[in-house]
Amino acid sequence: MKPRPNYTMLCDFYELTMGNGYFQTGLKDRICYFDVFFRQVPDGGGFAIAAGLEQVIRYIQDLHFDEDDLAYLRGKGVFDEGFLEYLRDFRFTGDIWAVPEGIPIFPGEPILTVRAPAIQAQFIETFVLLTLNHQSLLATKSNRIVRAAKGRPVSEFGSRRAQGVDGALLGARAAYIAGCAATACTMADQWYGSPATGTMAHSWVQMFPDEYTAFKTYCELYPHAATLLVDTYNVLKSGVPNAIRAFKEVLLPRGITQCGIRLDSGDLAYLSRRARKMLDDAGLTQCKIVVSNSLDEYIIRDLLDQGACIDAFGVGERLITAKSDPVFGGVYKLAAIEEPDGTIVPKIKVSENPSKITTPHFKKVYRLFGKETGKAEADYICVHDETVDPDEPLELFDPEATWKRKTLTGFRAVELLAPIFRNGELVYHIPDIEESRAYCAEQVELLWDEVRRFEFPHNYYVDLSPKLWNIKHELLQRNG
Amino acid sequence: MKPRPNYTMLCDFYELTMGNGYFQTGLKDRICYFDVFFRQVPDGGGFAIAAGLEQVIRYIQDLHFDEDDLAYLRGKGVFDEGFLEYLRDFRFTGDIWAVPEGIPIFPGEPILTVRAPAIQAQFIETFVLLTLNHQSLLATKSNRIVRAAKGRPVSEFGSRRAQGVDGALLGARAAYIAGCAATACTMADQWYGSPATGTMAHSWVQMFPDEYTAFKTYCELYPHAATLLVDTYNVLKSGVPNAIRAFKEVLLPRGITQCGIRLDSGDLAYLSRRARKMLDDAGLTQCKIVVSNSLDEYIIRDLLDQGACIDAFGVGERLITAKSDPVFGGVYKLAAIEEPDGTIVPKIKVSENPSKITTPHFKKVYRLFGKETGKAEADYICVHDETVDPDEPLELFDPEATWKRKTLTGFRAVELLAPIFRNGELVYHIPDIEESRAYCAEQVELLWDEVRRFEFPHNYYVDLSPKLWNIKHELLQRNG
Repeated sequence: MKPRPNYTMLCDFYELTMGNGYFQTGLKDRICYFDVFFRQVPDGGGFAIAAGLEQVIRYIQDLHFDEDDLAYLRGKGVFDEGFLEYLRDFRFTGDIWAVPEGIPIFPGEPILTVRAPAIQAQFIETFVLLTLNHQSLLATKSNRIVRAAKGRPVSEFGSRRAQGVDGALLGARAAYIAGCAATACTMADQWYGSPATGTMAHSWVQMFPDEYTAFKTYCELYPHAATLLVDTYNVLKSGVPNAIRAFKEVLLPRGITQCGIRLDSGDLAYLSRRARKMLDDAGLTQCKIVVSNSLDEYIIRDLLDQGACIDAFGVGERLITAKSDPVFGGVYKLAAIEEPDGTIVPKIKVSENPSKITTPHFKKVYRLFGKETGKAEADYICVHDETVDPDEPLELFDPEATWKRKTLTGFRAVELLAPIFRNGELVYHIPDIEESRAYCAEQVELLWDEVRRFEFPHNYYVDLSPKLWNIKHELLQRNG
Repeated sequence: MKPRPNYTMLCDFYELTMGNGYFQTGLKDRICYFDVFFRQVPDGGGFAIAAGLEQVIRYIQDLHFDEDDLAYLRGKGVFDEGFLEYLRDFRFTGDIWAVPEGIPIFPGEPILTVRAPAIQAQFIETFVLLTLNHQSLLATKSNRIVRAAKGRPVSEFGSRRAQGVDGALLGARAAYIAGCAATACTMADQWYGSPATGTMAHSWVQMFPDEYTAFKTYCELYPHAATLLVDTYNVLKSGVPNAIRAFKEVLLPRGITQCGIRLDSGDLAYLSRRARKMLDDAGLTQCKIVVSNSLDEYIIRDLLDQGACIDAFGVGERLITAKSDPVFGGVYKLAAIEEPDGTIVPKIKVSENPSKITTPHFKKVYRLFGKETGKAEADYICVHDETVDPDEPLELFDPEATWKRKTLTGFRAVELLAPIFRNGELVYHIPDIEESRAYCAEQVELLWDEVRRFEFPHNYYVDLSPKLWNIKHELLQRNG
C-alpha cells in the first residue's frame, strides 16, 4: 500500500470555527454523541449496503495537523492562538461504534456512533460522511446490478466516467464488496484487491490494416484471454465472422475453446442472440458473450427477460456514479451530551421538515432474525442500557403509525454496531476485502425477497423501543 | 502544495495489455492521434465548460512506473519481460493540444488532442478522461447554478455528499472556476484556492442550554462573521427572534450592522420573506439571508421568481455530484495514424449507434465571433493544415443536415486548442485559478442568451470544413 495524502484538512471550515468556539468557551472537553444515519434508500430500494469503514479508520488513525496546516489556519485571522496550539497535538481520543462493511442497512438507524470531546466529535463530520456516503452509495447500486445479472459476472468498467480518482478507486472497492467480480482499473486491483480485467479498445482494431488481422494478432498474444471487441465496423457482417475465423485459426488448433466476444453498441438482445447462433454454428459453443454500453440493473433485467444470450456484463458510468440516484444522504447529528457527572442528556433536532427530525440519545441497534426462517424480520433501536431478551416475546410498533404492532417470538437478536475505537485506540479487526465481500453476499441472502425487490419493496421494520420512543416524544413536545 | 500520490497505475488494464501487444508486434513507436470529445451537454444545456487541464498536465509530468508497480505487473503473468523493461523508463514524449480551462465547449469538437507513440497515446486514456469528465461536469453544472442566482453569491457546500475525496476537492475547484464564490471545504481552499467559508451546524445550537445563548456566544466570538443557523427548533417563533436579539445585544452596540442568518429547511420562499420582514422591522436591514437545502438551478430560479428574499445560496449535493445528470460522457478516440514516412492516415470508428461515429483526422477548431456583435456564432472544425481567412466569406453547413447553410462575413476566428506539450515538454503557461475563473466568466458572456437558456437552448453550430466532411464520408462509405 503506497502512501496516501493526509486528509485532516478535508473538513468543512465551520468545524474549525465551531471548534475554536468550543475551545474558547470551555466546551472543548464536553463529551458528545453523534450518529451517522441516512433517510432514504437510493433508487427507492428496500435496503442499502454499508461500505467505507476501513477508510474512516485510516483517517481517524492519521488525524493530525502539520506546520503548514497551522500556518494556513493562522493566516485566516479568525482562530485563537491557544486553539492553534491545541490543534498541534490534536488526536482522536474518543470511542466509535459502527456496522461492518457489506451489511444491509436501513433508513433511520445509526450506522456509526461517535462518543468524543466536542471539538473532536464535530471535527470528523465531513470526512466520515463523505467516505461512508460515497462507498455505501456505490455498494448499494452495485449490489442491485449484480442481483439483476442473476449469477452472471458483472465487471466494473467506469473509471473514465467516475467523479474523480477516489470515485474510481474506492468506487471499484465498494463495487467489489457488493458483489462485482472485477474492475477495469489497474490501481483498484493494486491498492484494494478488486481483480483487474479488460478486453480491448476500438483503437486496437483500428491500428491494424483490417479487423481480422487485429483479432488474429490478439489471439496469438493472449490465447488464454482472448475477448474480442466486435463492433468497430459492423457486428454481424464483419466483427463476429472475423472473430470466428481468428478463433478457429489460432485457438482451436492449440486446443483452446475458452474465448469471448464483446458487444459495446447496438441492440444487445438482438445482436447477442444472432452472435450466439453464429458462434454455435461454428462450433464455438464455449465462446462467451460479454456486453457493455450504458447498462444498469433495469436494462440488464430487461435484456435477460428478452432472452439475450449474455454470459457477462461490463458496467460503466451508471454504476460508478450511481447515475440514477447519485447521492447517499447520510447525515451526522448530535444525539446526546454528557454532563460533567456522566449523566447522558439526550438531544434532538426538530425541523420544519418532519423527515429531518432526529432520534435522540446514545443508542444501540439489534437485528432480529426469525429462528425458523433465519431471515431478518426487523431492526430494533433502543437506549444504550437496554437489552433484548430473545427468550421473551418482543412487541414491535411502527414509530410513526404506532397502532401498527407485531409481536415477535422465537428470534435471534444480533447487535449491529461493533466497537471500532475505544479511547482513540483501534479495537476492531479490519476484515480484508474478500471477507467483506463474502459477508455482504451472506447478509443480503438473509433478507426476504420482498425487501430485495427493485421497485416498491416491502418496507423493512426499523422500530424504536418504548423507552426510546418516549424520550423522543417528550423532547419533541418540549422543543417543537 | 503537498505531495500527491502518483496516478500512473490509474489506467484501465486493457491499456497495458494493448501496450504489451503493440510492443510485441512492432507497433510501439507508431505515431497515433487521439481526440477527447463529448457527445451531449448534461442537463440538455446549450454548452459545457471545460475544466481539469491542470490536473492532466500534472499527471503527464509525473508519469512513471516504480519497482512496486513493475513487480505487481510481472505478477499478472501476461506481460512480456521486454515490455516491463520498456515501462521502467516510460515517459510521455508526445504532443498535446487542449482548450483552456473555463472555456465553453460543444459536442463533437476535440477538446484535447494527443499525438504520441501508440503505447503512450493509448496508456493515458483513462486518467485524461476521468479528469476532464469530472471537472467539466462540475464546472458545467456550477455555471448553471451560478447563472440562476443572478449575481447573488453561490457557495459550494457539498463535500459530505461528494463521490470521494477528489469529488469534493476537485469538484470545489471546478465550481470555483465556473463562478462559485466559495466552498465549505478547508482543503479545497488550502490546495486549490477556492476560498473556504462556513456558518455553523445545528449541533452548535444544541450544545448550549438554549438557542439564544448559542447565538449570543457565536456573535461574541465572530462579530464580523456572524451568520446564525435559525432552524434548529422553529425558524419564525424562536430562530429569527433569538438571532435578532443576539445581533442587537452583541453586534449593534459595537457598530456592526453586517450579519446574516441561514435557513436550511422548510419553504425557503415563505420563510425568507417572513424573516426579511422581521429583520427589517428590527432595523437589521443589512442582515443577509443565506439559504441552503437541496438547491439547484431550477429551485433557485423558482425561488427568485416567487420573490424570495435571499442574498446568497449554499448549494450541496445537487452541485457536487451534478445530481440531475451526473456523467460527462467524454470519450477518447483514435483519429489518425502516421505512416513511417509521415503521411497522416485518418481513421474512423463506425457504430450501430450513429451518434457514436467519430470524426477522423488530425484537426483544429476555430471559434468564429461576429465582428459587430462580438458574440460567438459557430465553431468550425477543419483538417490540421487548413486555415480560415476572416477576410473571406465562410460558408457553414450542418454536418448532418447538409442543406442547412449559412454564410459568415466579417468575423474574428480564434483557434481553440493551444499547444500544451511538445515532444513531452510542457510549453503552456498554466493559468492560476483566478485567471481561469475570470476567463470563464468572460467567455460565457460571449455566448448568445439563446445558447445559455437552461431548457431547449438554441443549438450552437459546430460545423466541419468541406475537406474534413468529405474525408469523413469517404471513410464512412468504405467501412460502413
